[in-house]
Amino acid sequence: MVELRPITEENFIDAFELKLAEGQERFVSHPIRSLAQAYVYRDQCQPFGIYADGKMVGYVMVIYDYDVPEYDIWHMMIDKAEQGRGYGSEALDRVLGYIGTRPFGDSDRVALTCNKDNPTARKLYESRGFSATGAEDEDEIELAMTVDRNNVGQKG
Amino acid sequence: MVELRPITEENFIDAFELKLAEGQERFVSHPIRSLAQAYVYRDQCQPFGIYADGKMVGYVMVIYDYDVPEYDIWHMMIDKAEQGRGYGSEALDRVLGYIGTRPFGDSDRVALTCNKDNPTARKLYESRGFSATGAEDEDEIELAMTVDRNNVGQKG
Repeated sequence: MVELRPITEENFIDAFELKLAEGQERFVSHPIRSLAQAYVYRDQCQPFGIYADGKMVGYVMVIYDYDVPEYDIWHMMIDKAEQGRGYGSEALDRVLGYIGTRPFGDSDRVALTCNKDNPTARKLYESRGFSATGAEDEDEIELAMTVDRNNVGQKG
Repeated sequence: MVELRPITEENFIDAFELKLAEGQERFVSHPIRSLAQAYVYRDQCQPFGIYADGKMVGYVMVIYDYDVPEYDIWHMMIDKAEQGRGYGSEALDRVLGYIGTRPFGDSDRVALTCNKDNPTARKLYESRGFSATGAEDEDEIELAMTVDRNNVGQKG
């Protein structure tokens, strides 16, 4: 059971201590660097700890780009000791559910970038509906999808 | 002419690129780590770039501790290529001036910690009126002083 919890003064040290796997340093920023960016974009982003069974096993940030507009998923990572258990996939579902609540603005577009040399991450994103937009920036390709608004309270 | 400018999306990359001098890594956190903390304490702190002649030469954060209450000065550093020019001393004056405006709360107490093995920093702080409180935490000693409220608009 994977859940997202906002980064606060109660849990940020756990995020500081997450470890990128060898070789992933070149694909994704460490949560410390991501949180430093969260400071300057604090009115348009939400960083989360990814939790499994109550323990922080990863990190992800959702940021709203008012210029496009779109939701961007930044810096998603699973601690190197916690990989291979499907946490990234479940976390991505939670992230898309969060974006479906339209926390910052009304766009239904979600985008992220993925390194060309990171087929594992790309496969994960494509399994959830993302596809390449054709936009590239150096070694990063852009993937995007559409997320419907959550029908909160409209069950049955 | 040294001035403080708030860290924003316009200048945070300059703060990311500041370099601690060799040996100072063990005394002070890098601005990236400090800004990550600023995210979680964003409602009670203000990180600044320290500027000389329009260029960012250092970094400092002011944070208000509501529990004491007091103003704390965190993570002050001057880039390793910019040291020895009196920027730290001038920056500290600007910081105390800022605290004198009582940006978060009405305390007149200002505190910071300094590593026991960092006499240069301690001398700087003592030259501005700080003195040891006797409180210690591992290798860090606490220094404190009182700052009068700025008499803004009450000149002459």
